[in-house]
Amino acid sequence: MSENDFERWIVLLAGGIGSRFWPASTPQRPKQFLPLGSERPLIVETLERARALAPLSNLLVVAGEHLQPLIRSQLADLPSEQLLLEPQAKGTAPALAWAAQEILARAARPERAVMVSLHTDHVIRPLERFISTLERAVQAAGVSDRLLTVGVRPTRPETGYGYIEVGDPLTPGTFRVRRFVEKPDRATAESYLARGGFLWNSGMFVWRPQILLAELGAHTREVAEHLARLSEGDISGFFAAVSTLTIDYGLMERSPNIAVVEAEFDWDDVGAWAALMRVRARDHEGNLLVGDAHAVDCRDTLVWAEDGTVVVFGLADVVVVRASGVTFVVPRDRAEELKELLTALPPELREGIG
Amino acid sequence: MSENDFERWIVLLAGGIGSRFWPASTPQRPKQFLPLGSERPLIVETLERARALAPLSNLLVVAGEHLQPLIRSQLADLPSEQLLLEPQAKGTAPALAWAAQEILARAARPERAVMVSLHTDHVIRPLERFISTLERAVQAAGVSDRLLTVGVRPTRPETGYGYIEVGDPLTPGTFRVRRFVEKPDRATAESYLARGGFLWNSGMFVWRPQILLAELGAHTREVAEHLARLSEGDISGFFAAVSTLTIDYGLMERSPNIAVVEAEFDWDDVGAWAALMRVRARDHEGNLLVGDAHAVDCRDTLVWAEDGTVVVFGLADVVVVRASGVTFVVPRDRAEELKELLTALPPELREGIG
Repeated sequence: MSENDFERWIVLLAGGIGSRFWPASTPQRPKQFLPLGSERPLIVETLERARALAPLSNLLVVAGEHLQPLIRSQLADLPSEQLLLEPQAKGTAPALAWAAQEILARAARPERAVMVSLHTDHVIRPLERFISTLERAVQAAGVSDRLLTVGVRPTRPETGYGYIEVGDPLTPGTFRVRRFVEKPDRATAESYLARGGFLWNSGMFVWRPQILLAELGAHTREVAEHLARLSEGDISGFFAAVSTLTIDYGLMERSPNIAVVEAEFDWDDVGAWAALMRVRARDHEGNLLVGDAHAVDCRDTLVWAEDGTVVVFGLADVVVVRASGVTFVVPRDRAEELKELLTALPPELREGIG
Repeated sequence: MSENDFERWIVLLAGGIGSRFWPASTPQRPKQFLPLGSERPLIVETLERARALAPLSNLLVVAGEHLQPLIRSQLADLPSEQLLLEPQAKGTAPALAWAAQEILARAARPERAVMVSLHTDHVIRPLERFISTLERAVQAAGVSDRLLTVGVRPTRPETGYGYIEVGDPLTPGTFRVRRFVEKPDRATAESYLARGGFLWNSGMFVWRPQILLAELGAHTREVAEHLARLSEGDISGFFAAVSTLTIDYGLMERSPNIAVVEAEFDWDDVGAWAALMRVRARDHEGNLLVGDAHAVDCRDTLVWAEDGTVVVFGLADVVVVRASGVTFVVPRDRAEELKELLTALPPELREGIG
């Protein structure tokens, strides 16, 4: 088989609620719709990467129904029948089962289909190395019954990511997975970085759709017992019945049939405001100013001015955000505690006001 | 003469440009129109104090023409002929000369008139002790040819105020003035506090209007040579010709005929954002939250949310202001450097945007 024999299908998961960039991200405008990596929204950049892997006709976007208007406006090229609107948010395992079913139904040669699942809210660079890594994963998945995941070599002792412990080589550039590790503590993350043999779990997956459905059938009872509804076309019945479940917990940590491809590209999940300072160019004082933002005598300060002007003076290591009718100020080293903060606020504030 | 023999006239100086509370204060809405001391604007509280000293008919407000709409809306009771609109801003010496001339023209018994000049952007408490102090000053001024100023006993080594060195007693509660001192450095301010004998210069004055004009004639050539225009009713000619001059520099520091009354009340000129934290009640964590402001795990932080919501998290000793379409964040100990900051900003930002 040559690589041209595979029919590539790309699934973009656009369902996150993205409270981690509050108040710029809200339930009505999750993180993937923000211009975090550049001047363009993350989901628009993700679509561009996807189109470098497969023709537009082979792209599916899975999202909650309330995001339909935003997706239609930001991904104007996407034909409406390629937008899969979840009747209910039930996590990535049901969403990917549905997408696999759709690919098998839509593919010209279903037996040659390879499915690539991508998150829409990550920053990935450069494009060429993304493509070469994913091509390698497509080849490996296309000729095997394995579930391929993409791992990223750590560059810092990150405690905000899950890790993959790498096992023996399978084919050039792919490896067995010894185990998945939940977000580690600082000391553990430092030992992973020092020892090597651990990769960040990027959440990108490559597999043949019928393999995914078979693996779900074998290991994921919570989804498997409702798969018949999917094949009967009863999508709302499937989502009503199925449990909320992530693909990581529901399948990847249970199946023995997992392999990992090591990424050649730089990857960041931009998990919090402070992470923006890693992925965007800063000025010579270390400040990152987005929008109508002005800093005088500041250093290492992030200003996100989406909605009116923001002026900061004499600050160091502070995050200042103005968006959705709300101004938010937090020290840089506490910006990751946003979830805890939001639970302390009146509920109406969490959704933004503007 | 009994005290009832004096005809009290109160002059409110409402001309300040008040950039020190930017972005809440702008040239279109100077500091005296902000609710800094309580939920009501400073100028409204000043008018109330003035009405406790004299009937409304004996109040004059001096302000720039551009402030007319704001004054008419905030001081709705004030008859329009009692609002003296300066054709040009030339400082307090020309403004008070005009007011004195007007009082002499309007008074039922000009020879019995006593004029009280008050700033409209200070915080003064409590009302009863303000009245008793000013009554004492009115009595002293009414029976003498002196220019009475009101001095406030220092409670901290303040470097933002001018000081008055107190001389020998004249009458009970009034003293000669040995000298006026410009804003001192920290060590000098501390020595004044330790030694005693120095009062803060509050900028409140009490005198007979004809004495003011005579003193200006004797000591203030810059004003004196144009006084004829005033008496001829050529107000715009007077303001066009006269130099810009403060009454402090132009007369009080030159005349030998000055006395000071020591204030019994608490006084603050609220000269900068951080000063607000002295004059307003703070919560048990030392935070001052004004408007739609929410602080979680913060201390000694000021949030002024005039225009949308402001949420602060994990801050200490920070000032956050949202007003006039601008968000402004500064450490508390640098909030007094606002003038320097504003010169570093694009000019259009200084005037606010909303």
